[in-house]
Amino acid sequence: MDKNKNLNMCVMAGGSGERFWPFSRSSRPKQLLNIVGEESLIAQAVNRCATFTPHNRIYIVTTKKQAEDTQKVLPELPAENIIAEPYGRNTAPCIGLISALLAVENPDEILGVIPADHWIPDVDIYARIMLDAAKVAGEHHALVTIGIQPRGPETGYGYILAGEKLESPHKTVFSKVEKFIEKPEKERAEELIATGNAFWNAGMFVFRVGDMLEAFRKFMPEFYENLKKIKDAGENPESIINEIYDSAPSISIDYAIMEKADNVIVAHGEFNWDDVGSWSSVASHWQKDEFGNSAKGDYVTVDSSNCVIGNEGDGIVGVIGMDNVIVVKTDDAVLVCPKNRAQDVKKLVQKLRSNENTKKYVE
Amino acid sequence: MDKNKNLNMCVMAGGSGERFWPFSRSSRPKQLLNIVGEESLIAQAVNRCATFTPHNRIYIVTTKKQAEDTQKVLPELPAENIIAEPYGRNTAPCIGLISALLAVENPDEILGVIPADHWIPDVDIYARIMLDAAKVAGEHHALVTIGIQPRGPETGYGYILAGEKLESPHKTVFSKVEKFIEKPEKERAEELIATGNAFWNAGMFVFRVGDMLEAFRKFMPEFYENLKKIKDAGENPESIINEIYDSAPSISIDYAIMEKADNVIVAHGEFNWDDVGSWSSVASHWQKDEFGNSAKGDYVTVDSSNCVIGNEGDGIVGVIGMDNVIVVKTDDAVLVCPKNRAQDVKKLVQKLRSNENTKKYVE
Repeated sequence: MDKNKNLNMCVMAGGSGERFWPFSRSSRPKQLLNIVGEESLIAQAVNRCATFTPHNRIYIVTTKKQAEDTQKVLPELPAENIIAEPYGRNTAPCIGLISALLAVENPDEILGVIPADHWIPDVDIYARIMLDAAKVAGEHHALVTIGIQPRGPETGYGYILAGEKLESPHKTVFSKVEKFIEKPEKERAEELIATGNAFWNAGMFVFRVGDMLEAFRKFMPEFYENLKKIKDAGENPESIINEIYDSAPSISIDYAIMEKADNVIVAHGEFNWDDVGSWSSVASHWQKDEFGNSAKGDYVTVDSSNCVIGNEGDGIVGVIGMDNVIVVKTDDAVLVCPKNRAQDVKKLVQKLRSNENTKKYVE
Repeated sequence: MDKNKNLNMCVMAGGSGERFWPFSRSSRPKQLLNIVGEESLIAQAVNRCATFTPHNRIYIVTTKKQAEDTQKVLPELPAENIIAEPYGRNTAPCIGLISALLAVENPDEILGVIPADHWIPDVDIYARIMLDAAKVAGEHHALVTIGIQPRGPETGYGYILAGEKLESPHKTVFSKVEKFIEKPEKERAEELIATGNAFWNAGMFVFRVGDMLEAFRKFMPEFYENLKKIKDAGENPESIINEIYDSAPSISIDYAIMEKADNVIVAHGEFNWDDVGSWSSVASHWQKDEFGNSAKGDYVTVDSSNCVIGNEGDGIVGVIGMDNVIVVKTDDAVLVCPKNRAQDVKKLVQKLRSNENTKKYVE
């Protein structure tokens, strides 16, 4: 595939590393782990982008704390392409920042922003859709969001309801966005899917940076005034970035911009996708034994089925008489949790963090 | 308490270390662990004996493999008091061997034999009963077994049904033994307890060594012929012991002798006792939190109750949404198992042992 010299990609990598404890820690969040696949999720994200754009067009926005480790797993990227936020402020400030930085040189630059920690095996389809989205964004001055064809009435994702289809010469299908829908109840999710026009919101967007800044001017005018200072930052924007972030609201791009803008278009993303959201979701990615246990690392079971067993390191995990239970071992920690309580790993992490004696296990 | 110079004690320490995996390994069986209390179970057993007899009267019979580690945890014992069996052959050969060794000097020596891995907190009562049993064994030429007052209709222990009480000047009550009963069903256990004459068989015996050898002559005549060679062994009995064990049957003293002999007396052992049989039984010995979780080592729970959590080492164990589950962590292994499957830890150990790649975790 020809590399499109005009497409910039920004990988947003600000995760806090709570749901994959004990593999993940705040210094080693999900995107730095090779929890699914043989490489870290962020390296996989960069490699996917590198199939359609050169490395010097790929940017990472991460936190100061994680910048060094991030750079280590991405040796192909120019060091200056790794931009450190002083602290995580959700996606809106992050997307505003990278848009402003690119717009200093040229407001016509096209930018795709993607999360660092998702699983997308169909790289060719993904690449084609991103390139088509880049063209449509430029042609229509649109904010393009990549919607994922739902595989079922999941209640853990937001949905995008597509309206009128665009006349377009591209292979990818595009539609105007009717509306964004927050994580629905099961019944509502089923209704949405039955329309045939609903997509999962995967947090991936493609746009002309001038158009995104114009949206910030309209919908986050105070923050936009701050972003304008980037122009005067010159070679070393760090102190200006700190200043911008001090007053930046912590808000998602969906709430801040996408749900309000009238120039939003959804690309029909007919590729396989998973946000690798929790321990229970890795079951479909890891090797399964004859009893339905999904595992990474050495383990032995007696009368156990449908468990998720993660063993990082040399030792062994032994499980007797358990069904649908998550067991994870690292060198210094063990997690045991029913699959249907996987979201509560965050509670355990909070408990560990709140105690002086145990907070070292989450740092 | 005056030390009774005539009472020899032998601690039988031949455990294979399967039920307390991963804490226990074949090189580090239960009796060498401080799984209950602050010292190893075998050191606790020796310390209890040392309250009523001098250290040079306390013997250990263990396997060759474990002899060195056993000596390390018992620095007070003379090295020659630690006797290594070439391989474990259950309790009958072990008791025959130590009886024959002591009888070389004097068949009137009184000997108490006890398992190495039990929990007995009431040391004063225990000491008094052992000393009384020693006197009764000498006076009556009896094989005395220490029966434990049952705390409930346990199905995991053998029972001793007591008959006629002995006229005796001692504080401890003694009865003739009516019969030994193998591990009963629940209903039978309830019937036994209702008689008021049933005791748990704790595998503790006191006798004159000449009387025990006479019982071997009657009930295990071939083995007895072999035991007689000990007399000619002199200072270094190792090769003779090897010869004896090569043809020794693997059989318990209960089956081989006690159930057949007509001179068996039961001491009413009204002290607290526990054989610390499995992970589920440690629950009553470890510290309990407000949710009924029993733990040794650091742990954190969310919505979990009545679990047994063992953490050997520095790390942390995190448990979410589990009830009545055993979670044990060592530096190289993790066990997860429902409390009511604690006996099946043996199955897991067998599975680990049968695989070249995993047998290192049980050795």
